[in-house]
Amino acid sequence: MADPGPAARTPVDKLSAQAAAILTAWGLAPTQVEGTTRVMVAADLRGIESHGVSTLSLYDDFRRWGRLTLNPEIRVVRESPVTALLDGGGLGHAPGLQAMDLAVEKCARAGVSVVAVRNSNHFGAAGVYALEAVRKGFIGIAMTNVWRPGIVPTHGTTPMFGTNPIAFAAPAGRNQPFCLDMATSTVAFNKIKLANWAGKPIPVGWAMDGEGKPTTDSAVAAKHICLTPLGGVPAMSSHKGYGLATMVEILAGTLAGASFSAIRNVREPEAERYNVGHFFMALDPGAFRGEDDFKNDLDAMIDALHAVPPANPDQPVLVAGDPEQAAFEDRTRNGIPLSEEVRKLLERLAREARVPWMLG
Amino acid sequence: MADPGPAARTPVDKLSAQAAAILTAWGLAPTQVEGTTRVMVAADLRGIESHGVSTLSLYDDFRRWGRLTLNPEIRVVRESPVTALLDGGGLGHAPGLQAMDLAVEKCARAGVSVVAVRNSNHFGAAGVYALEAVRKGFIGIAMTNVWRPGIVPTHGTTPMFGTNPIAFAAPAGRNQPFCLDMATSTVAFNKIKLANWAGKPIPVGWAMDGEGKPTTDSAVAAKHICLTPLGGVPAMSSHKGYGLATMVEILAGTLAGASFSAIRNVREPEAERYNVGHFFMALDPGAFRGEDDFKNDLDAMIDALHAVPPANPDQPVLVAGDPEQAAFEDRTRNGIPLSEEVRKLLERLAREARVPWMLG
Repeated sequence: MADPGPAARTPVDKLSAQAAAILTAWGLAPTQVEGTTRVMVAADLRGIESHGVSTLSLYDDFRRWGRLTLNPEIRVVRESPVTALLDGGGLGHAPGLQAMDLAVEKCARAGVSVVAVRNSNHFGAAGVYALEAVRKGFIGIAMTNVWRPGIVPTHGTTPMFGTNPIAFAAPAGRNQPFCLDMATSTVAFNKIKLANWAGKPIPVGWAMDGEGKPTTDSAVAAKHICLTPLGGVPAMSSHKGYGLATMVEILAGTLAGASFSAIRNVREPEAERYNVGHFFMALDPGAFRGEDDFKNDLDAMIDALHAVPPANPDQPVLVAGDPEQAAFEDRTRNGIPLSEEVRKLLERLAREARVPWMLG
Repeated sequence: MADPGPAARTPVDKLSAQAAAILTAWGLAPTQVEGTTRVMVAADLRGIESHGVSTLSLYDDFRRWGRLTLNPEIRVVRESPVTALLDGGGLGHAPGLQAMDLAVEKCARAGVSVVAVRNSNHFGAAGVYALEAVRKGFIGIAMTNVWRPGIVPTHGTTPMFGTNPIAFAAPAGRNQPFCLDMATSTVAFNKIKLANWAGKPIPVGWAMDGEGKPTTDSAVAAKHICLTPLGGVPAMSSHKGYGLATMVEILAGTLAGASFSAIRNVREPEAERYNVGHFFMALDPGAFRGEDDFKNDLDAMIDALHAVPPANPDQPVLVAGDPEQAAFEDRTRNGIPLSEEVRKLLERLAREARVPWMLG
């Protein structure tokens, strides 16, 4: 995505206000508006445009399909000193933030905690939640299953899992937090769409045709939505990515009592809610190490990784979270570079919702 | 490895006795002998020969290098109702089993627990520990860092992580447990050694030469031991495998206060102990779901995965743990098919240790 430069940057508060105005006009309750806006804009700040305000397009689809619950009650269904199960009832951002808050609170008292959410939906960028735990000095983990299957099991022909992401964040001292935020597919579907729009082929191992064969034809790949699990092909150990996608489905879906979407889509195609599930965990290094020992050791590791001689001097060795942190620092200061597509999307949604256009 | 057939199978109890006799003759304390033998033979039963009694070859190296602590004191260094830190002091099997036992005990009371081990060493197959939690109806997670770096970070030239495995197991009802047990490298180094012995090339993306370039020459790959992280090459998202390897290093190494081996190998090449670290976690589905709900839903998922139409009818879709479970059922009944190399290794070690040869 071409950066239009600082002059064309959109101030963070204006972007938040515009997104919130659209969601409010849709009839979404204030808690939902606040949570959804906060997580979307946090993703845009970290340079993860695919999970930023561009996801309003998906939520608009949900709304049109009658599948956006406007005023859900977020309930704590079960609770213990170190675990909890929440019922989300609508979009996943607000219950996701509440669940991670609860996990952090429990972890502060006990050293470790797990909070699951059921009856939820798309929650945006998983890394945003994991980083909430890091703000309190804890390790944070966030996972979610997905309403729509896209990943095909190794040796199979049909998609059974969403892109089932894993986010893992840990606090460093001198360095920015380590933050891994990855789909368990080889690549995001977005990369295939972009290749298709550009009429370009894709590498073997990104996607399959409808018969379980690897394809390099981006049009075929875009039509079938048969993503490969990380690894890509059996010879490159795609069974590991498939195993990781299943692990996420078990932790985020099965543990919470959420739907396994590949089955639900067949059994209950008209279900009012998607019943997506999330998994949140917080873990206190202070339960294991002395004051600052963990942060100091993580700093030493991050420094050692940054110091690895690169194969190509123009491409230094990075650590998970580096590009997002660089985007965050730039965008917090200079505003968010909206792409032309996203700007048009917001303009249309504002017009349709009859709210003022604030980014003109 | 060619199966010599049922006639040539080695009974499990004889194999255990032979391994235990060798370890005892080396001077290892009874707790160490028992734990190490149990985990090695459990791996052989599950068909994971690379982590079975064949690892006695590595432990023999440790012994010769003066790096095998014969009678370590396994100590609980810190403890809370849901966390603990153990000091292992020698091989990782005995403290690993003790740590997972402790995690299970804490989880039974609280719903979730994490136990870390520092000052340890090679602990065998991670899946063996994860399955210990499943025996009590819990989800089990086991990870370890590794004394010797082998995985090169994406865009880098030098190995910084061991094969840093992740094991995740979960209890089903009708079906066998789900059990993912994977190195975060694309493939195990063993596959490269075998290709080199056979004089065969390896696929692009398994390994790199000493300058960070992918190599298909198995001799070059065997010489440099520069494994790729899962994904293989940047275009196939090897940064995800690199991120996972780092995550395991943080959880198993940094959290426990173990050494980051890529640094230690430079700073303390003569350190008496490797100070490897492990991470164990137990999680009770009963803290989130009603009686049997989790198992029933996991059964439905496993059934759905087994029912996915395969791309090739001769290669059905499997679920993580299927091949190991099939081996377990066969080998429990019929004994363990030892390869000629492993048989020769055991014979040599028995002779050198002056213990009777029991597998003649």
